[in-house]
Amino acid sequence: MATDRTAKVTWTGSLMEGGGRIEGVDSGAFGPLDVTWASRAEDPAGRTSPEELIAAAWASCYSMALSHALAGAGTPPERLETSVTVSFQPGEGITKAAIIVVGGVPGVDQDTFVEHAEGAKVNCPVSKALTGVPEVTLDAKLA
Amino acid sequence: MATDRTAKVTWTGSLMEGGGRIEGVDSGAFGPLDVTWASRAEDPAGRTSPEELIAAAWASCYSMALSHALAGAGTPPERLETSVTVSFQPGEGITKAAIIVVGGVPGVDQDTFVEHAEGAKVNCPVSKALTGVPEVTLDAKLA
Repeated sequence: MATDRTAKVTWTGSLMEGGGRIEGVDSGAFGPLDVTWASRAEDPAGRTSPEELIAAAWASCYSMALSHALAGAGTPPERLETSVTVSFQPGEGITKAAIIVVGGVPGVDQDTFVEHAEGAKVNCPVSKALTGVPEVTLDAKLA
Repeated sequence: MATDRTAKVTWTGSLMEGGGRIEGVDSGAFGPLDVTWASRAEDPAGRTSPEELIAAAWASCYSMALSHALAGAGTPPERLETSVTVSFQPGEGITKAAIIVVGGVPGVDQDTFVEHAEGAKVNCPVSKALTGVPEVTLDAKLA
């Protein structure tokens, strides 16, 4: 079954002087959230940004993909700690993403874990959607 | 100045039986948020998903790009209402995105608004990052 997920944003005014509000999402899980150009390109000051939301999406999806791969190999993870950092350069766009994952995975050695981690970097649906990001790095290790 | 935005996810267990928690983001704007395979591929039940987070990122970025283009043409928007729906098909990935924007923009006719809206669809940094999404539609009109 395909699923659809929707988010709505209301923006008022110009880019620099105006601001947006992520009115909320269908699941009700978060929002409303304010978003401004300053929170994206300068100091967040408690507000979110497109890049922060993408980082959260990517870290979630990556964790799912790696968990699935490890379970498929007969070694489900006890715990994966995934951090994703997305970099934004005004005038240029999203220039890179850095994935860091630390795994607690019984029965797996470091090389095998890294192999699965590299696979998840390529195969997770969010990675496959974000093919326009010029540089994606991965740092994977066992806890 | 480039900016970095980071999100952290802790995942425990397998894909189907385990679950994740978006521990929070550096800005402090949201989180913790729970995320599971079921909330992604079945019923959200109050939890978020990678696609919902991407929808929020895209709607925010798109609104910024369109606001900027309109202001650059001397007609800043009073209001843009942007909705983005991201579709996920298990086994296939993110299959499409639908952008709907309704603008309150003094001094602009429908054709000019649509032209700017089409431009923002191509040029917004999140669109440029998400080039792996096979189908992106746009429905733009003035309020």
